[in-house]
Amino acid sequence: MMHQAAVSLGVPTRFLAENSDDPAAQVSPDVTIGSARSANDLRNFGRSCAVMTFEHEVVDLDGIATVDCLVRPSPAALAVVADKLSMRAAVAAAGAPGPPHVAATSVEAISAARADWGRIVVKLARGGYDGRGVFIDPSDAVVAELVTRSPLLVEPMVPFRRELAVIVARRPAPADGGLAEVAVYDPVHTVQHDGQCAEVRAGEVDAATALAAQRIATQLAERLDIVGLLAVELFQLDDGPLLVNELAVRPHNTGHHTIDACVTSQFENHLRAVCDLPLGATALRSPAVMVNIVGNDNGDDPRDYLAPALAAHRDARIHLYGKHARPQRKVGHVTVCADSLDIAAERAWQVVEALHGSMDAAPNRRRQ
Amino acid sequence: MMHQAAVSLGVPTRFLAENSDDPAAQVSPDVTIGSARSANDLRNFGRSCAVMTFEHEVVDLDGIATVDCLVRPSPAALAVVADKLSMRAAVAAAGAPGPPHVAATSVEAISAARADWGRIVVKLARGGYDGRGVFIDPSDAVVAELVTRSPLLVEPMVPFRRELAVIVARRPAPADGGLAEVAVYDPVHTVQHDGQCAEVRAGEVDAATALAAQRIATQLAERLDIVGLLAVELFQLDDGPLLVNELAVRPHNTGHHTIDACVTSQFENHLRAVCDLPLGATALRSPAVMVNIVGNDNGDDPRDYLAPALAAHRDARIHLYGKHARPQRKVGHVTVCADSLDIAAERAWQVVEALHGSMDAAPNRRRQ
Repeated sequence: MMHQAAVSLGVPTRFLAENSDDPAAQVSPDVTIGSARSANDLRNFGRSCAVMTFEHEVVDLDGIATVDCLVRPSPAALAVVADKLSMRAAVAAAGAPGPPHVAATSVEAISAARADWGRIVVKLARGGYDGRGVFIDPSDAVVAELVTRSPLLVEPMVPFRRELAVIVARRPAPADGGLAEVAVYDPVHTVQHDGQCAEVRAGEVDAATALAAQRIATQLAERLDIVGLLAVELFQLDDGPLLVNELAVRPHNTGHHTIDACVTSQFENHLRAVCDLPLGATALRSPAVMVNIVGNDNGDDPRDYLAPALAAHRDARIHLYGKHARPQRKVGHVTVCADSLDIAAERAWQVVEALHGSMDAAPNRRRQ
Repeated sequence: MMHQAAVSLGVPTRFLAENSDDPAAQVSPDVTIGSARSANDLRNFGRSCAVMTFEHEVVDLDGIATVDCLVRPSPAALAVVADKLSMRAAVAAAGAPGPPHVAATSVEAISAARADWGRIVVKLARGGYDGRGVFIDPSDAVVAELVTRSPLLVEPMVPFRRELAVIVARRPAPADGGLAEVAVYDPVHTVQHDGQCAEVRAGEVDAATALAAQRIATQLAERLDIVGLLAVELFQLDDGPLLVNELAVRPHNTGHHTIDACVTSQFENHLRAVCDLPLGATALRSPAVMVNIVGNDNGDDPRDYLAPALAAHRDARIHLYGKHARPQRKVGHVTVCADSLDIAAERAWQVVEALHGSMDAAPNRRRQ
């Protein structure tokens, strides 16, 4: 998706990919095989780049600080978000609201938190992703194992009404000390299934909440001196206030609808920001729902059901990533724009079900 | 642009390009260097394809009939549109309206047409493009030279009010003899400068005219058994009726706005059609104006003015093709969506002027 955005602007891209069948390597002509977890690979790759940026956070943080080209967002920003404890500290230091939390490295510390808060959530400070590394009210036996793997972040269960996300793009700060250009998207309502983002609803959040979320994101981007995208995931409490739950400094799953629903996609604005080019309008052109296409347990490949999925609704925008459909793996997404969010969601899910071979949605699938 | 569309659907593409710096070769990983004007290159290329299609019409028509894979649109359809005389005959045979015309191979025949019609237009039957090969009221000396180059199509000057274009996508006809699925876009008003399309206005054409144009395009696609896209350029006469001027069987300049202004782009629908996949909705999401970025005489390269152009309007969608900016060469386009077509046009031209280094639109261009 980054490559598609770069093609339109004529920005030449080179991708560092671990394997020749990685998504970017399948669709772009200039690919270096190597790992962002290797300082050596990063340094070699950086020699041929003007600017280096990232679409994931599995990066050697010491190595990235040693490359020769511009790195945007900065190694410091990458380091802050790579560790949930440092991220929580940075959010607090920036004056943004977050849930109560403690760091823990022992079973005893977690027992103490449980005694204070009742139900708790325990998160690996490093390496979690898509609900992995998050444990709700874990047993002492699980905790005893977790403390051997990573420092832990412990929080009370937050009684939230819904989860929101907001993305802001930010250019480098000008040399004269002025404010950097930012462009912030409308916040979305994100619906999780099994701890993983399943559905994103754009155009649902009321104006007051949207403004509050946008202020938090903009403030964090400035205080953390982010260049590129900052995605902020938030809890909205029952009575309205927002708490920052997660940060990411890259194009984010909760912004994939921007490709089809906004004037400028998150990918294009990320590229513009890291290339220090003027940012594009973020306006939502229509209410929209994005649903992730996730591998299921029966081994079916959604790519085999493209025809019935396209037939399921003519308005649906299908994006497949060229990934094999392992269970729980995100292998694509579907966005539907419609005046009504419920209609958009119904259509998007119908198409996703067709991609999983549902006979109801796709009686003709066997033609494939 | 075809590659960008293919990436989303996960349709694997391979491009035949004459040079390694051709636009498609710059952005896609699977490129064969060769010429569509060579029967041998087409045959070799076809051996590795399931379906072959085209984004231009400079194709060896004998060679294309000998390749081993599916060719969509068919070699017969490519041949019809490659020659303006056969195209006019096919339009008439399909029952669609066209201007009066005669074939001519001599100065005398053209003098006779001039005597009948007054002002005439003489067109090379083969090899014209973007206004090249079209001669308004040519002198006898010019005519004497033209008849040595190609059979000629001679027509009276048509007193048209405006030029329109309409694009229809069509899948292969089903084996059971039923009707093939078609999807037709809203007609656009096309504005020519020096015989070349300069500006496309989408959302301007009244409903009755739109329906008439769409009927003509659909009827032609069916009668010519087009698979893929058919672009129909039309004259609208002062009193309303439409005459077919040109046909193209590929993604067309008058449909570039569909990338940003329609639910499904012409490129995606072309791919869907030639892959026999269900077509996407063609609905125009907003009035839109597309302006071509054309190389000018001062040798400036629009790519050098990307930053001031992006700054010129945040809503503008800029598409650069990776082409060197020779005079009169189309090297990109800009689309702006807005509720008002005049506002969209003003913004789009402002961005195009910034890409040509206008100081008014882009006082900061020297920062580049």
